[in-house]
Amino acid sequence: MAFNEHYPSSLLSDAVDAIGSLPGVGRRSALRLALHLLKQPKENVHHFTEAINRLRDEVRYCRVCKMISDGEVCSICSDRSRDSRMICVVENVRDVMSIEETGQYHGVYHVLGGIISPIAGVGPSDLTIKDLCERVSSFEEPSSAEVILALSGDVEGETTAFYIYRQIAPFGVKITSLARGLGFGDDLEYADSLTLGRSITGRQIFKP
Amino acid sequence: MAFNEHYPSSLLSDAVDAIGSLPGVGRRSALRLALHLLKQPKENVHHFTEAINRLRDEVRYCRVCKMISDGEVCSICSDRSRDSRMICVVENVRDVMSIEETGQYHGVYHVLGGIISPIAGVGPSDLTIKDLCERVSSFEEPSSAEVILALSGDVEGETTAFYIYRQIAPFGVKITSLARGLGFGDDLEYADSLTLGRSITGRQIFKP
Repeated sequence: MAFNEHYPSSLLSDAVDAIGSLPGVGRRSALRLALHLLKQPKENVHHFTEAINRLRDEVRYCRVCKMISDGEVCSICSDRSRDSRMICVVENVRDVMSIEETGQYHGVYHVLGGIISPIAGVGPSDLTIKDLCERVSSFEEPSSAEVILALSGDVEGETTAFYIYRQIAPFGVKITSLARGLGFGDDLEYADSLTLGRSITGRQIFKP
Repeated sequence: MAFNEHYPSSLLSDAVDAIGSLPGVGRRSALRLALHLLKQPKENVHHFTEAINRLRDEVRYCRVCKMISDGEVCSICSDRSRDSRMICVVENVRDVMSIEETGQYHGVYHVLGGIISPIAGVGPSDLTIKDLCERVSSFEEPSSAEVILALSGDVEGETTAFYIYRQIAPFGVKITSLARGLGFGDDLEYADSLTLGRSITGRQIFKP
């Protein structure tokens, strides 16, 4: 059903436009959210908008790994119990949170801030690759240090991984990438052949 | 999968809390939206929050029908081509928009601002029922005026309709309610018996 765009008030229409500009929020949801906010006490709405403004205006990034941070150096980089000679290179903040969630990683990170994508107009200089090279170049005994390229398995991810590999290989650091293969619970029958192929070539000793 | 609540920054965590407080927005979506806003230019984010603040701070309601309005009297109430002797009583702003969308109604509205609900602690005095009575009492020749009770078919809706009926019946105005029955495209087999019963008792002359 087409939605009538005749809003009873320009204030409401502006708010619906603003909320509807968020990704994944349609105009009907935007209207629902706007009318919800209208019913809330003023201080709640101001608290809501202030939290968003503060995030955008006052956000800081870790000087070392470029992760969102409250201080100059983030809590992960300043954690002495973590292995600072193991750097996991990821595209964005959410990837760090996902990997942290696994509880399986005890090194540090490097957030690229995006991925090389000629179509989206994102080149290597738009990312924090230069900072990564500086970090890697400062390693003593680089052969015992490791850079994990934890990028997505699509064309952009592979391109970015290859570009970074070329940049940091000369420093003599160990470079690894994420294991690819069938996910837990995945059905062999429905796996795509590229993934299944990688699962076969990357097979591991069975440990019952 | 449980979501790790260890955010890298309190600013991010506050923004996710705020966005996640919206109805129907989970914490994962809230994080996605917060990181989206973080990537936008500052002026876009300020425009976004200002539209919401202005809606909440500067919203006005029509003096006559209590609909959201830019001016003192809304565009519907001030439209001379509409029948001001036919008042459609609805729960909220969205209901007005839904009925306007049909293009089938040319009277005016009265927005109650909620529905009588003892469970939610909403009584008649929390709604604009008194204003409705004043409007109805001012009709000349009330018997040719009409009040349509366009409330939802649940217990709260029926209760509210009955309460309003009791309040305005003494003025001698014609009181109607929305037709109930099978929706267009509804399957007889799957209709609940109350709806189907209403469809039978309210049957109409077949006009092919």
